[in-house]
Amino acid sequence: MKKLIKEKTSFLTDMLEGLTKMNAQIEVIADTVVVRKEKKKQGVAIVSGGGSGHEPAHAGYVADGMLDAAVCGEVFTSPTPDKILSAIKAVDNGDGVLLVVKNYAGDVMNFEMAQEMAEMEDIQVATVIVKDDIAVSDEDKRRGVAGTVLVHKYAGYLADQGENLDNIKEKVEQFISEIKTIGMAITAPMVPTTGQYGFDIESDEIEIGVGIHGEKGLSREKIVPVDQIVERLISELMKEVEAKQLIVMVNGMGATPLSELNIVTKYVNDNLSQRDIEVKHWLVGDYMTALDMQGFSLTFIPYNEAVLTALSEPTESSYFN
Amino acid sequence: MKKLIKEKTSFLTDMLEGLTKMNAQIEVIADTVVVRKEKKKQGVAIVSGGGSGHEPAHAGYVADGMLDAAVCGEVFTSPTPDKILSAIKAVDNGDGVLLVVKNYAGDVMNFEMAQEMAEMEDIQVATVIVKDDIAVSDEDKRRGVAGTVLVHKYAGYLADQGENLDNIKEKVEQFISEIKTIGMAITAPMVPTTGQYGFDIESDEIEIGVGIHGEKGLSREKIVPVDQIVERLISELMKEVEAKQLIVMVNGMGATPLSELNIVTKYVNDNLSQRDIEVKHWLVGDYMTALDMQGFSLTFIPYNEAVLTALSEPTESSYFN
Repeated sequence: MKKLIKEKTSFLTDMLEGLTKMNAQIEVIADTVVVRKEKKKQGVAIVSGGGSGHEPAHAGYVADGMLDAAVCGEVFTSPTPDKILSAIKAVDNGDGVLLVVKNYAGDVMNFEMAQEMAEMEDIQVATVIVKDDIAVSDEDKRRGVAGTVLVHKYAGYLADQGENLDNIKEKVEQFISEIKTIGMAITAPMVPTTGQYGFDIESDEIEIGVGIHGEKGLSREKIVPVDQIVERLISELMKEVEAKQLIVMVNGMGATPLSELNIVTKYVNDNLSQRDIEVKHWLVGDYMTALDMQGFSLTFIPYNEAVLTALSEPTESSYFN
Repeated sequence: MKKLIKEKTSFLTDMLEGLTKMNAQIEVIADTVVVRKEKKKQGVAIVSGGGSGHEPAHAGYVADGMLDAAVCGEVFTSPTPDKILSAIKAVDNGDGVLLVVKNYAGDVMNFEMAQEMAEMEDIQVATVIVKDDIAVSDEDKRRGVAGTVLVHKYAGYLADQGENLDNIKEKVEQFISEIKTIGMAITAPMVPTTGQYGFDIESDEIEIGVGIHGEKGLSREKIVPVDQIVERLISELMKEVEAKQLIVMVNGMGATPLSELNIVTKYVNDNLSQRDIEVKHWLVGDYMTALDMQGFSLTFIPYNEAVLTALSEPTESSYFN
C-alpha cells in the first residue's frame, strides 16, 4: 500500500498531532478528542465527530465560530461513548451541549449513549441528526454527508449569538431539513487501516450517489463529460429542491484537484442558470472527504438571509471559507 | 481518461470561470488573465503566473494582500507575452509592477519579453525569479516550486506597506535566496490535455525530488514509512539550511488527503525537534499542486520576525491560511 503513513495503528493519533501544529487554537485530549485550548466561557457548546477519513471534517472545524469539540473515531469507525462523554464534559460551561451527529447507526447509538451518561451527570444535552444524502430514498435512512459541515457553521453561529439550547436545536433541525446533497466518485478510496480499496470500479465507470465511506449509491454508470454528470446530479436534487435562489456547496472527496472542482462549479452554474435558478453563495473545496477518493458532491440549500449571514460570519477554522 | 472535465480544450477557461464563482473579488480579462475587480489605486502591483495545473496557484492568490493579477497558461505551458502584457497594463497604477516568475525557461523568456514591451510603454517593471527547488544541484537551474506562494504573500504585504518597486525587489530577492524546497511523489499526475500520466511509477516506488510538473528528481526509491521519507527530505534540506528556528510549509501535490499531510507534519515536527530546531510557524495544505499527483513538498525558511509578520497578515485569498 502506497500511503504517507507510518503504520496503520497510528494513523489517527499521528494525524491529530499533526493537525494541532498549524491550528494553534486546538489541542487533543483523551487521545482522540479535539477541543479548543480556550474553552468557551458561555453559550451552548457544539460537539460533533464520527469516524475519521473525512478531513478536514470534523477536527478541522474546532474553532471560534464553529465546533467546540470533535470526537474522532478510527477511520470510518464511530467513536466510543466514553470519548464522546469526555468531549461533552470538557466543553460544557453550564449552558448545555448540542451534539451534531451524522445519520449512521453506530454514530447515532454511541452519541445517544453518551448523551444519557452526560444527563446522569446533570449536563443539559440535545442532539440533531444530519441526513442530507438524497441518494438514499428512505428519508429515515439517509446518510449524513457534506451538508454536516454547514450545520457545524450554522450551529456555531447561533451559539455565538447567545441562543439557548432549545432554540438552537429547533433552528438547526429546520435547517437540516432543507439541506440536500448527492455525491459521485470516479475512483475508490484506499483505506489505510486495511490496505484495501473501498470498492472496485472499472477505468471507464463512475459511481453516482456514492457515500463518504465509498458506500454504493444510485447507480454505476459510464464516464461522460462533466456537464452531463452535473446534469445527472442536479436532476436528482431538483426532485427535492424548489427554491429559485440557492446556496451551493461543491465538495471535493479528498483527491479531486481544485482545478476540476472549479470546472464542476462552472457547469453547475450554467445548468442552474438554464433553470432560472440563481446561486447567492458558493462554497467550493474539500469540506467532507472520503480519504483519497476522487469525485465530488453537490449540496443545495434554499437561500435565506439568516442562513447566509450565519455561513458568512468569519470563523477561525482554516478549512471553512 | 477519467477526469471531471468537459473537453481538453476548454480545461483552462472552464476552470477560471468556475474559480470566479466562489471568489467574488476576482474576474477574468483577456480570456486567461485573472485580476481583482477593484484595481489597487496605489502601491506596486504584484503579477505572477505560469502554466496551469498548480491550483490554487496562481489565480487563487489574486486577492487583497497577495497578487494583483495571475497570467494563466494552458496546463503546464507558459503564458504568452501578450497575455502577460495585458496583465501588467491592467494592474499598473503608476507605481510600477513586480513580476514573480518561476525559474522555467519558457516562463522566464515570456515574462522578460512582456517586461520589455511594458517598458516601451513607460511602465516601470521589475522581475524576481523564484528557484527554491533544491532537488536540482545547479543553483541557476533550480525550479520555482511551492515557495513561490510565500513570495506572493511576502511581496503583496510589502506592496501594501507602501514600499517602492526597488525596495520590494531587493527584499523579495533576499527572501527568495532563503527559501528551500524539496518534493516527493507516490503517484504521477494525469494530464487532462494529453490524457497521459506525467511519468510511469511502479506500485511500490516513490520519486524523491520530483518537480511540480512531474519532472524527475533526485532518485527513484522504494516506498518506506513516512517518517523515513521525511528524514530523507530533511537530510537534503539540512545541507542548505542552518537556522535553528524555521517557518515550514508542508504542501500537498493535489490529490494527497489532508489526513496524510497532517501525518507528514507530525513527523517533520518530530524530526526537527530531534535536531533541536523549532518551528515558529506552519503552513499545511495544497498551495502549489501538480494536478492530481499524490505526494508533498517541504519548504523551509529561516525564521525572522519581519517575514512571519508578512506571512501572517490576513489576506482575502481563500487558499492561503
